[in-house]
Amino acid sequence: MTRMLESYAQGRWFAASDEGTPLLSAIDGTEVARISSSGLDVAGMIDYARTVGGPALAALTFHERAGILKQLGLTLMAGKDEFYEVSRLTGATKRDSGVDIDGGFGTVLSYASKARRELPNDTVYLDGEVEQLGKKATFLGQHIYTSRQGVAVQINAFNFPVWGFLEKLAPAFIAGVPSIIKPASQTAYLTEVVVRRIIESELLPEGSIQLLSGSARGVLDHLGGQDSVAFTGSADTAATLRSHPNVVGEGVRFTAEADSLNASVLGPDIAMADPEFDLFIKQLVTEMTVKAGQKCTAIRRALVPQALVGAVIESATQRLAQVVVGDPDAEGVTMGALASFEQRDEVLKSLRGLTKSAEIVFGDPESVDVVGASAASGSFMSPILLRAGDKSATEPHEIEAFGPVSTVIGYDDTADLIDLAARGKGSLVASLVTKDSVIAREIVLGLAPYHGRVLVLNSEDARESTGHGSPLPVLVHGGPGRAGGGEELGGMRGVLHHMQRTAIQGTPNVLTAVGNKWVTGSDRTTGDVHPFRKDLGELKLGDTIVGGPRQVTRADIDHFAEFTGDTFYAHTDPEAAAANPLFGGIVAHGYLVVSLAAGLFVDPDPGPVLANFGVDSLRFLTPVKAEDSLTVTLTAKLITPRQSADYGEVRWDAVVVNQNDEPVATYDVLTLVAKPEGVQA
Amino acid sequence: MTRMLESYAQGRWFAASDEGTPLLSAIDGTEVARISSSGLDVAGMIDYARTVGGPALAALTFHERAGILKQLGLTLMAGKDEFYEVSRLTGATKRDSGVDIDGGFGTVLSYASKARRELPNDTVYLDGEVEQLGKKATFLGQHIYTSRQGVAVQINAFNFPVWGFLEKLAPAFIAGVPSIIKPASQTAYLTEVVVRRIIESELLPEGSIQLLSGSARGVLDHLGGQDSVAFTGSADTAATLRSHPNVVGEGVRFTAEADSLNASVLGPDIAMADPEFDLFIKQLVTEMTVKAGQKCTAIRRALVPQALVGAVIESATQRLAQVVVGDPDAEGVTMGALASFEQRDEVLKSLRGLTKSAEIVFGDPESVDVVGASAASGSFMSPILLRAGDKSATEPHEIEAFGPVSTVIGYDDTADLIDLAARGKGSLVASLVTKDSVIAREIVLGLAPYHGRVLVLNSEDARESTGHGSPLPVLVHGGPGRAGGGEELGGMRGVLHHMQRTAIQGTPNVLTAVGNKWVTGSDRTTGDVHPFRKDLGELKLGDTIVGGPRQVTRADIDHFAEFTGDTFYAHTDPEAAAANPLFGGIVAHGYLVVSLAAGLFVDPDPGPVLANFGVDSLRFLTPVKAEDSLTVTLTAKLITPRQSADYGEVRWDAVVVNQNDEPVATYDVLTLVAKPEGVQA
Repeated sequence: MTRMLESYAQGRWFAASDEGTPLLSAIDGTEVARISSSGLDVAGMIDYARTVGGPALAALTFHERAGILKQLGLTLMAGKDEFYEVSRLTGATKRDSGVDIDGGFGTVLSYASKARRELPNDTVYLDGEVEQLGKKATFLGQHIYTSRQGVAVQINAFNFPVWGFLEKLAPAFIAGVPSIIKPASQTAYLTEVVVRRIIESELLPEGSIQLLSGSARGVLDHLGGQDSVAFTGSADTAATLRSHPNVVGEGVRFTAEADSLNASVLGPDIAMADPEFDLFIKQLVTEMTVKAGQKCTAIRRALVPQALVGAVIESATQRLAQVVVGDPDAEGVTMGALASFEQRDEVLKSLRGLTKSAEIVFGDPESVDVVGASAASGSFMSPILLRAGDKSATEPHEIEAFGPVSTVIGYDDTADLIDLAARGKGSLVASLVTKDSVIAREIVLGLAPYHGRVLVLNSEDARESTGHGSPLPVLVHGGPGRAGGGEELGGMRGVLHHMQRTAIQGTPNVLTAVGNKWVTGSDRTTGDVHPFRKDLGELKLGDTIVGGPRQVTRADIDHFAEFTGDTFYAHTDPEAAAANPLFGGIVAHGYLVVSLAAGLFVDPDPGPVLANFGVDSLRFLTPVKAEDSLTVTLTAKLITPRQSADYGEVRWDAVVVNQNDEPVATYDVLTLVAKPEGVQA
Repeated sequence: MTRMLESYAQGRWFAASDEGTPLLSAIDGTEVARISSSGLDVAGMIDYARTVGGPALAALTFHERAGILKQLGLTLMAGKDEFYEVSRLTGATKRDSGVDIDGGFGTVLSYASKARRELPNDTVYLDGEVEQLGKKATFLGQHIYTSRQGVAVQINAFNFPVWGFLEKLAPAFIAGVPSIIKPASQTAYLTEVVVRRIIESELLPEGSIQLLSGSARGVLDHLGGQDSVAFTGSADTAATLRSHPNVVGEGVRFTAEADSLNASVLGPDIAMADPEFDLFIKQLVTEMTVKAGQKCTAIRRALVPQALVGAVIESATQRLAQVVVGDPDAEGVTMGALASFEQRDEVLKSLRGLTKSAEIVFGDPESVDVVGASAASGSFMSPILLRAGDKSATEPHEIEAFGPVSTVIGYDDTADLIDLAARGKGSLVASLVTKDSVIAREIVLGLAPYHGRVLVLNSEDARESTGHGSPLPVLVHGGPGRAGGGEELGGMRGVLHHMQRTAIQGTPNVLTAVGNKWVTGSDRTTGDVHPFRKDLGELKLGDTIVGGPRQVTRADIDHFAEFTGDTFYAHTDPEAAAANPLFGGIVAHGYLVVSLAAGLFVDPDPGPVLANFGVDSLRFLTPVKAEDSLTVTLTAKLITPRQSADYGEVRWDAVVVNQNDEPVATYDVLTLVAKPEGVQA
């Protein structure tokens, strides 16, 4: 008997004591490991996540969590050879393993990097702008996101034993929500070894990650309204889980990424002689063979102009004939095995459905030449290309053969192709090969409501294209309708899925305190010390400097026009300026106003403020005329220490008013400010 | 027999031919109307929405839809007296009717106004920034939202026959999705008359709104993955609908706003003598009596410090004793009837549950003094205040008595109150009365994960506060867990719920075409005509002017420092500037760089460009040293004609580079540009 895969539960490794279920190598059918969760205290795991993992994560800011993820990604990447060895047993080629293993670690690193750039160094995320709810602005609204106080249960599919859990873990971790990882049994031996290395690294706070190897029976019985389930797998299983009483009645947040009849469209503008024709064929064959077609995002339907159906089949067939199936370690092999005999049987069953209305034009479902292994003892199969007889038959639009199988379908015109794509009833991704941007807009907008992602390919982006089948950490992954209706990834969008959005109403001071961002109308502090003389340790939200007044003369305006060359008539020609409907006379340049304002608030000597690196949301509200006097008020609004530098960013609220206290300009000034001496990254 | 309420289906009014169900006045029990949907072609309505309403809305931009909503809101507001007359029959006082009727029309107007300010004048909404997916930036990503190609089915509750459907209709309409409105039968006679006036106004495109009066049986059988159901009502009904095979299996987007045990918290810092104590009591009694407590957002649990339980009960009791129950038309009446005898029976049943662990301290469930009507013939009841015996008993945290009923519960400390509030298992709203911002942050962040909205009340915002129970169009409405897990409203957030988010991948030119916003790397057009000489009809995305080079001399920097007063050492003191870790020597002011750039791109003579009204996202990327030469490239990026003005907004992409082609500054310049002569709003 081989080794029993373990679960990591409540801070320790647990092995079931029964015989478990054997897991077989996809290449030669030998037993790799056994799996069982019998005796595992699932309720205890959920409780542990909530009471140990949640609080541990809540004690860290977004930036601190990101820093941990970065270390984790680098550590895993450094030890990846071990994972490639194990991955081979799932039938994966080196290229396939790269998609899963490097793809997973890359996703972790992408989240680490993006979270530090796009989230505050805090535990609360502010969503959108302050809403003024009363005329006097004593009562305001601000949407915030806070971490849900539950556990993220992640039920993964067999095809991506590494990427599959990491792409769910990374956003949940940044969001401050602990995860319970439940891999599909078939390939759980690879997940287990990666999780084992994660636990050994001791990088993650205890309780923030647990592993459930084996059946997850009963897990939903213990979930409530703060918990979530992210499921990847079949639509049938998704429907069963979605109907669970706790999901229906307790408000467990449930998202699914399920069946998807992804289409790739050869645009109506492409002829055989175009390089785009070859790009289309090459991408189609790649998607059929990578991971032996066992990708939720693989191309199941090739939609091509009726006139080119024959040419597409001929060209694709030539390329498919060069595919070498076999043991991933054998010389020249370009496609490995399916993950198991059960999976191959499933694909063959789907093929029988598809052939009701389509004919096979490449490959034999019952026979395949295998290099370096025995065709009988591994779960190998040939890539299969079909040609749809009747484009309106339901099978090609409804049956997902989860293997190296695609169907070529002819379309009549643009409206027809959009309609055919929509007959998938919601898919994860579509791709469109076109070199015409007008056609791209029409087809993309037609496809978009039915898809989570649409890729437009042509010779300009082909070299950099990541391909039809690759979800990216910065883009949403998921699709409407049949594809499950969920969303994962998408950069910080995926993080916010694990948080609760709440509208907060209150005074400016309350919103400043809740959001750690100074809100107009809150208290200002003007002391003896210029706020530019305070380092990050001394500066407080609301610290303010008032500068001015400074009178703007007509001579200033004339001079500025001449000096900068900005001789726009509103600044130089009294008659023309008088005719301008907004100004009614000579006005000062907006850039003059902000330049003078800087002169009023800047503290000249060297100090903690290192640089002004930008300005946001500058609006000119009232024209400044000659003889107007300007006063500027600059207030510390947002203080963001960087984890890995000896300075941080300070955003200042700037308001310039005239002698009548009318606002002339409002904007944010962005500066870099040093941490206290001796406090380093 | 009274009149049969009609449905508006497939472009005509339909009356069922059976006897229907009688609907009774809440005040005197007389029959108001009958209702039935028997014989109604529900499948036909759904098909009509998809094939007539959807395309009609798709032909309009967000701004055009907003313009229609504005007209609708104004038209309805002008005729509101008629609706007040009918509203009285539901048991509503004038104040109650205002919440429903004016609140509903106000929501429509808010959406009209906000959509024009925050959405483009287009049919596609761009979500977030462009993501660079390859090193050479030939392959980019952009998330977009497009209108879902289905119908929004709106199943409303009896308590807000006007606001209830308008708060769902307005966001769906802006999103370009047709609605089918299904009011609760009990008060459907008020909904029907409002919808009748809407149809008569002929303002809305045909098919964009239909009315289903009576049972909605079978409606879910016809829905698919592009359709949505927004439900307001009981958690039990929500669970039934959520388990429907089409919702589970087809990916119908289902959101619910259901049971909610909303809490109002008297902060630990408040003493009896504080004005905040009275604010707490006043708000509690208001929420108990407005709409006779039949609001999903009403206060069900008053959480107060243990030491103040007695004082709170005493003070609330005094105020409750002044409530006058009766016919809304009768002099002095401050609380009307419940909507029906059935509703009152439901409340009395819930009260029997609550009194298992709580005692009634005000009001008699069986008896009430009624002014201007017979207590026996209308569904009147007394406000009821309870005192929880054991704060950890389940009843006060689980049983929602949907009427003028609240329970006072004592808490020990902050952690305890957060825990007690969370025992509601997810609520729509909580309020907190405190005058301390630090306490506010702690409690608000504790409450937030369990709530859709949290209101902080004190004497500073009391005057402008819209109150615990009022959802606002600009803030999200909904709550996690028991409250249904959904979200409505929230300004444009509510619009996006009706749209599909899709990640688009492609070249810069493709993204520019798809999003109608110029993307860096796309084609630029530099012609003979300066783009500032083109009006909104002539200007095209990508129109570009290149200005420069202009050399920046040390004399320029010295002069600018002296002229503006911005004598920051990095511009003036060579030695100190050399020590700055970012600059290493004298640098030009950022404001000098953008001022000179303006001098390089501005066209001086009067023309279509009326004003520069702002600058966004200005970033200084490379320091500018003396003798550097600046070149600026300005490109038309986004063109937004205003529906109601003879000009529009043009956003320009500005890039300033130095003599080595290094980017020195990037920003967006915002201008107002005239429409062609003769083309007016």
